[in-house]
Amino acid sequence: MSAIRVIHRAGFAAALFVFMQSSSFSENNAEIGRLEAANAAFDTALSHRDLGALDALCIQDAAVTALHPPSKAVIVGWPAVRKSWEGAFANFPEMSVQMKNPQVRILGSTAIVTGVEAFRGKRLNGDIVEFLAPTTNVYEKRGEQWLLVHHHAGRAPQ
Amino acid sequence: MSAIRVIHRAGFAAALFVFMQSSSFSENNAEIGRLEAANAAFDTALSHRDLGALDALCIQDAAVTALHPPSKAVIVGWPAVRKSWEGAFANFPEMSVQMKNPQVRILGSTAIVTGVEAFRGKRLNGDIVEFLAPTTNVYEKRGEQWLLVHHHAGRAPQ
Repeated sequence: MSAIRVIHRAGFAAALFVFMQSSSFSENNAEIGRLEAANAAFDTALSHRDLGALDALCIQDAAVTALHPPSKAVIVGWPAVRKSWEGAFANFPEMSVQMKNPQVRILGSTAIVTGVEAFRGKRLNGDIVEFLAPTTNVYEKRGEQWLLVHHHAGRAPQ
Repeated sequence: MSAIRVIHRAGFAAALFVFMQSSSFSENNAEIGRLEAANAAFDTALSHRDLGALDALCIQDAAVTALHPPSKAVIVGWPAVRKSWEGAFANFPEMSVQMKNPQVRILGSTAIVTGVEAFRGKRLNGDIVEFLAPTTNVYEKRGEQWLLVHHHAGRAPQ
């Protein structure tokens, strides 16, 4: 094999390597985009107090879990988790939830999305409640969709 | 093939199926035990204010994250996460952290451990601080070891 051929082949292999890397890089970016979209859809469902939308975004099984700002115990299983949101929606006839600049970490078919939600709610008596809610959302990929499997929102000190 | 042989083979297949199921069941139980042990070791490291022990229990990369009870932003990357624990140990010359009955969910090589930690700390001025800390720990399996990749502890209302 001539030296030129070897260089040619090495160049091709390097180009292929760069292509594969950049392709995997953009696939990862696309996956992060899908997770950010799922996470934003979750905040929108909360802000619209839309249980039907939450149904579509969550894994509805016996091991799904949640911790809310007032929680003193883990809420376990879809019926209890769903009921906990129903309770929040009953307490707040108006609410808005928004997480800016979430941190996304993908671990195979699981992903952790963390950030600080800005929560604003109006109570039944008209009182306005506003606080920062440090939040961890864990998603699992089922088919093409990232579904929520664990939600933990706290309340940062004022 | 005689009817007896068919029944015999069906019986063998059924026994094999039951064995495989129970074997997978006990393997899953063993994995849950390993995660509970990792999670207890993490609480012990915090209670002993032992940074060296934390080093061995955590994934030390740029994407490891933490949220502590006073956090108003996500702490990102091992140097910052480690420093945040160093800060907590400096503020509390004595502390104890214990999570009872953690909920464990394994998703492939990722696992979510949630529960409510009982936190008790003595400040530099001698004041005692006690609260319940709703907690989410996410672990990733590397080789045979479950390592912490995300820690989120809040503070439940009194």
